[in-house]
Amino acid sequence: MSCAIAAPLSDADATIQPMPDASPAKWHLAHTTWFFETFVLRDHVSGYRPHDPRWAYLFNSYYEGEGERHARARRGMLSRPSLEEVLEWRARVDEALVAAIPRLQPAALDLIELGINHEQQHQELMLTDMLATFAENPLLPAAWNAAPRAPTAVPDQSGWIGGRSGVVEVGHDGEGFFFDCEGPRHELLLQPHAIADRLVTTGEWIGFIDDGGYRRPDLWLADGWAWVQENGVEAPLYWRRSERHWLRFGLDGLMPVHLGEPVCHVSYYEADAFARWAGARLPTEAEWESAAGAFETTAGNQLDCAGPVRPRPQREAQLFGDCWQWTMSAFLPYPRFRPAEGTVGEYNGKFMSGQFVLKGASCATPRGHSRASYRNFFYPHQRWQFTGVRLARDL
Amino acid sequence: MSCAIAAPLSDADATIQPMPDASPAKWHLAHTTWFFETFVLRDHVSGYRPHDPRWAYLFNSYYEGEGERHARARRGMLSRPSLEEVLEWRARVDEALVAAIPRLQPAALDLIELGINHEQQHQELMLTDMLATFAENPLLPAAWNAAPRAPTAVPDQSGWIGGRSGVVEVGHDGEGFFFDCEGPRHELLLQPHAIADRLVTTGEWIGFIDDGGYRRPDLWLADGWAWVQENGVEAPLYWRRSERHWLRFGLDGLMPVHLGEPVCHVSYYEADAFARWAGARLPTEAEWESAAGAFETTAGNQLDCAGPVRPRPQREAQLFGDCWQWTMSAFLPYPRFRPAEGTVGEYNGKFMSGQFVLKGASCATPRGHSRASYRNFFYPHQRWQFTGVRLARDL
Amino acid sequence: MSCAIAAPLSDADATIQPMPDASPAKWHLAHTTWFFETFVLRDHVSGYRPHDPRWAYLFNSYYEGEGERHARARRGMLSRPSLEEVLEWRARVDEALVAAIPRLQPAALDLIELGINHEQQHQELMLTDMLATFAENPLLPAAWNAAPRAPTAVPDQSGWIGGRSGVVEVGHDGEGFFFDCEGPRHELLLQPHAIADRLVTTGEWIGFIDDGGYRRPDLWLADGWAWVQENGVEAPLYWRRSERHWLRFGLDGLMPVHLGEPVCHVSYYEADAFARWAGARLPTEAEWESAAGAFETTAGNQLDCAGPVRPRPQREAQLFGDCWQWTMSAFLPYPRFRPAEGTVGEYNGKFMSGQFVLKGASCATPRGHSRASYRNFFYPHQRWQFTGVRLARDL
Amino acid sequence: MSCAIAAPLSDADATIQPMPDASPAKWHLAHTTWFFETFVLRDHVSGYRPHDPRWAYLFNSYYEGEGERHARARRGMLSRPSLEEVLEWRARVDEALVAAIPRLQPAALDLIELGINHEQQHQELMLTDMLATFAENPLLPAAWNAAPRAPTAVPDQSGWIGGRSGVVEVGHDGEGFFFDCEGPRHELLLQPHAIADRLVTTGEWIGFIDDGGYRRPDLWLADGWAWVQENGVEAPLYWRRSERHWLRFGLDGLMPVHLGEPVCHVSYYEADAFARWAGARLPTEAEWESAAGAFETTAGNQLDCAGPVRPRPQREAQLFGDCWQWTMSAFLPYPRFRPAEGTVGEYNGKFMSGQFVLKGASCATPRGHSRASYRNFFYPHQRWQFTGVRLARDL
Repeated sequence: MSCAIAAPLSDADATIQPMPDASPAKWHLAHTTWFFETFVLRDHVSGYRPHDPRWAYLFNSYYEGEGERHARARRGMLSRPSLEEVLEWRARVDEALVAAIPRLQPAALDLIELGINHEQQHQELMLTDMLATFAENPLLPAAWNAAPRAPTAVPDQSGWIGGRSGVVEVGHDGEGFFFDCEGPRHELLLQPHAIADRLVTTGEWIGFIDDGGYRRPDLWLADGWAWVQENGVEAPLYWRRSERHWLRFGLDGLMPVHLGEPVCHVSYYEADAFARWAGARLPTEAEWESAAGAFETTAGNQLDCAGPVRPRPQREAQLFGDCWQWTMSAFLPYPRFRPAEGTVGEYNGKFMSGQFVLKGASCATPRGHSRASYRNFFYPHQRWQFTGVRLARDL
Repeated sequence: MSCAIAAPLSDADATIQPMPDASPAKWHLAHTTWFFETFVLRDHVSGYRPHDPRWAYLFNSYYEGEGERHARARRGMLSRPSLEEVLEWRARVDEALVAAIPRLQPAALDLIELGINHEQQHQELMLTDMLATFAENPLLPAAWNAAPRAPTAVPDQSGWIGGRSGVVEVGHDGEGFFFDCEGPRHELLLQPHAIADRLVTTGEWIGFIDDGGYRRPDLWLADGWAWVQENGVEAPLYWRRSERHWLRFGLDGLMPVHLGEPVCHVSYYEADAFARWAGARLPTEAEWESAAGAFETTAGNQLDCAGPVRPRPQREAQLFGDCWQWTMSAFLPYPRFRPAEGTVGEYNGKFMSGQFVLKGASCATPRGHSRASYRNFFYPHQRWQFTGVRLARDL
Repeated sequence: MSCAIAAPLSDADATIQPMPDASPAKWHLAHTTWFFETFVLRDHVSGYRPHDPRWAYLFNSYYEGEGERHARARRGMLSRPSLEEVLEWRARVDEALVAAIPRLQPAALDLIELGINHEQQHQELMLTDMLATFAENPLLPAAWNAAPRAPTAVPDQSGWIGGRSGVVEVGHDGEGFFFDCEGPRHELLLQPHAIADRLVTTGEWIGFIDDGGYRRPDLWLADGWAWVQENGVEAPLYWRRSERHWLRFGLDGLMPVHLGEPVCHVSYYEADAFARWAGARLPTEAEWESAAGAFETTAGNQLDCAGPVRPRPQREAQLFGDCWQWTMSAFLPYPRFRPAEGTVGEYNGKFMSGQFVLKGASCATPRGHSRASYRNFFYPHQRWQFTGVRLARDL
Repeated sequence: MSCAIAAPLSDADATIQPMPDASPAKWHLAHTTWFFETFVLRDHVSGYRPHDPRWAYLFNSYYEGEGERHARARRGMLSRPSLEEVLEWRARVDEALVAAIPRLQPAALDLIELGINHEQQHQELMLTDMLATFAENPLLPAAWNAAPRAPTAVPDQSGWIGGRSGVVEVGHDGEGFFFDCEGPRHELLLQPHAIADRLVTTGEWIGFIDDGGYRRPDLWLADGWAWVQENGVEAPLYWRRSERHWLRFGLDGLMPVHLGEPVCHVSYYEADAFARWAGARLPTEAEWESAAGAFETTAGNQLDCAGPVRPRPQREAQLFGDCWQWTMSAFLPYPRFRPAEGTVGEYNGKFMSGQFVLKGASCATPRGHSRASYRNFFYPHQRWQFTGVRLARDL
């Protein structure tokens, strides 16, 4: 699917880095290929010779154990290799993997599974970074053309799902694939609480804006208020005010904001301020995860095929899909957490400061990728991902 | 005691702001005075007229509810009013408070208690900010002269205190004074663990340095490693290498590092890297707080009178004093936390993102100020406070 | 020729902006097209409709009179329109120009001549910006492959050309095409002096490096020394030290530095420091211009066709070609200078502060573009152009 | 007089550095003392021992030849030594100088003369930096109280002084004291021109403001327009709009702008834009210097004694006093310029890039310090000096 996501992109589209947080589409394609070539083929297939040894320097992301690498903020300087060359490399690596699989040891097969999950993460990032790229172009090109949509019905007032309280278990139990940070499974104590049965909508968010939400410091964390002031924030990312209503830019271009859709592209600061304004709060990670047991992880609006994904009105209670949901929990290690061995262990543990956990899955998450125990994480000011808000409250 | 702390300072010493995080001593004195004048005298004593209405603009720290204020990073521009004028203002406000107390309502008396605790916090900050100020002067002046110290005996290997596991209660129970963020008291679940019976020493830290601790990315969080690289960090703050040994600058001037003392002025990033190097981890806030029940909060090396305070060798198991201790817990709200009403409610809640909790008390904390439930908090890169390290481990 | 220069570029190559000072190749192509479309076709050909009215916003460089425009530092965000679309637009505009010429008024014909000269400037910039772009890629791709070169003979010690002294005339006399800033022609007084008959060579520059030239503050202007320190400068731009000798990156890729070639890609600061080290000085603009009268402006190593241009050993006295030559004259208006009328008058006059004049022409200057009166100008720290050094001295 | 200038300052006032360009008053006092102690007493008086050898590090400004020094931007961190200690040191150095003079060699006496002129420069800087310091304090303290002034009569339309044309001589002829950059005296050619017989007034400047002068890019140099946009400039420095009229902050506090006074605290960019708006231009350095021969250098509003100096209405033609006057000439070396030998030769020559020459003298220039050949210089954006505007035009 990675290639399908890149399909609407020209070589130039795939080369641009819109900001240091985001990477060029070509870089994503090459990096995930490098991951397989390095950790599987180079390390486990005798005689395999890397396609171009200089590319490791270009496409290593942040694995200190793999040596020096190109500066993250300069990934947009790589017009060479071209998109076509990267796709050819990719095809060759895929072929070599397929040929090798029958003879691979379990450890190498585990790395392939890890590589696939790693690639799924980058598929989502490709979509969000493509959006960030096109948003920088004053022509506002659509990645994919989509039929104009009729305004949708506005969902009812959201309901509340009563949460479990007392001692519960969270974290992954070790069966099947999971990232190291999802475990170990452990007990903790929940207080009486409820969690909303749907995401906050754009209509509700416009209420927040119209009530002066972005101009009232009492609603904001101190860091959040400083962020609002410095960046002149007055709406979700990619929104722009037109004369009569709000527009939002997406993979389908510039479109009116439809009131029934989940609000998207908001930061933790905004999510937190909105919750305070609404007299509620964000859920904790454990509350969310505990509630998620009752839901189908593969249901909802998630990524099935490349295209102009976007949040869509939620017609029934659902925890997965549409938007990643900010929790009020910091991304920190679970009790007895140990990073995976070796270089691939640099994958999650070293990011455990300053970030918040997001749960669920978004419209850009490959269906099947997420789990109740899945821990996504971003800094509280970041909002170029498909990030939204689910409220919670104490009982 | 605030005035005693300022005693060794000239008007110029008290005016300098060494960095945006720290404030001039004069500003601390004026700000705490403003707190009493504003929230007690102005709001609760009819007919009281502020000494100079323009000073509110200068000495409000961050209370959005109290209106516009001088930019934090420009606090060092205030040569006027002079230290002497501020001290006179202070005396007058003190006098007015004493005169008013007999007729004050309980709400106002509560504000006085809050103001006193607020002032105690600023007494500690005055000491740390004075140190930061003098450290900027190439002459490295001592705030107070202290007799040279004989090297001290190095404490034994630290022992481990077994912690409680299962459901425990933490947080303040509401009896006596506490800051809003310390409550509500609530239950949570602890895993089996132990906590060190003393702080990490300078001798142990030199072992970390000598083992390449500051040059091995595998020991560091990603944000921490970036911080090390950008700032060229290779030792705790205020340390400098001399030909034969390490020196450290303190309120008593430039002195040799004595090996038995607790290491001080380290960031969360350093504390976390050291713990990883030592095969241990930092305690969680709840583990620390649960262990603290067995200790006397007013014992240990804390602030009794103004002077060249510094960490001293710990001869017996003690949780309070010498250094604030980084925990691996983010500073986030407790279940059902509600900020205090009114402007003073801007005191803690709005800082609940991106920071870590420190527990205990330092050699610069006025004795009696801290509690087991006390939640100090700083960003993970900050280290100009008296911050040290206590290890913990899983059982 | 602009299209030939772009011939080796992929769409992605042509989209990258390596730094705010430089522009993407595609942008250069589009900007020069916009210049013709706007100032000639739109303004002088009735009924002409701009190809895409939104493109003016993208491709206006700095003409305030033409309205808002895309931020200069974000020119690298424009993957759309593609290189192919820009080339098609260009062809259409060319066609429209050719069709229109027979009926154009003299004023419009003057604008075409201005547009052609403007385009020649951008042809040189395309080459320098392509070089800057490829230099950012760790793979160091060559724009054009060139046959390996045999090391060249080192020229003799440079000789000195005695300059005229007394009252001389400089500046353009108004016959034929010239930029507004080149006039009016006027008299000024020259002191007795001589000017070197060739450019400083790489071999001489290595002597400067080996003598500690980049480490001796006494050789540098204060701003230059600060620039050296902040940027860790220790050689001309694009040079890198290998084990045995110096290499330099050029449009022909990474090659050894040959000692007989003119040194290139040096800043004014470096040129000035070198001259001081050599016991000489840089020429003034008038000294240079006065000497240039004896030389053929169209001789020497200048641009004839697209390719891997580079400075080449100078075998005989020559003022034009190889490298633009820093003078010690600031770029300021000549007596009675008046900018051209209208928006095109924003072309030179508004840059008259903080920059130095360069004279001559470089290996990347379209032959025929330059004149003795030509005034090129850059800031003293800039060196991504083909900039070199000619010495002068007092007699 | 330096001490008299510092008289109204507290130790704290004298310690603050309001911005990197400006220095604390105490630093100025110490630096000029260091200059005498180092270059005269240390180098020419055998047996002299510097008062405190560590102070050289603190109070060396930029003399690379004298070794490492405190970072310029951190001069405001020096609360120690105190103002009193600096003044005592100063008295001792003065005493030692007086005692030594009878036995000093001519070279040392020349250094004393240089030191006195150097100190006069710093007296002016002390006044401008004090003003910058107090301007940072929201209380806007006056350095000296001054009697309120009656509005003054507005001068007539300025007249024009016809300038000499043809070959003239400029530069210092070497008799009496001068700075190295003022010579050698040399000939150059002037075009027919005239120069205004007084400075531009605040009333005329308000006309510029009211005509949209700060909002019209066509009036500005490109660098100037960027400076206006980035800094939100809309009036001279220290001006603020009140409801009914303009106020300006000065050493006498916040006062109404009186319309007859010369406008002050404007940058080169502003001076240049105003001149363009007025249909005139700035004079060249040579035009100014040539005209100055007819005027008494010691007349006009210059500094006689410490106090709240400010520009005053000019009632008759005068070239010196009130404000330094921007010329359109870059600060570059005169033909055959050689810096003075030794460390003191770092005084002027190394600043010869990027700056413009100002001529005349201001209300803060010690009377007798300036000359027709005097070359003051600042960057085009700087305006915290007493800088004003005199117009010129071609004939």
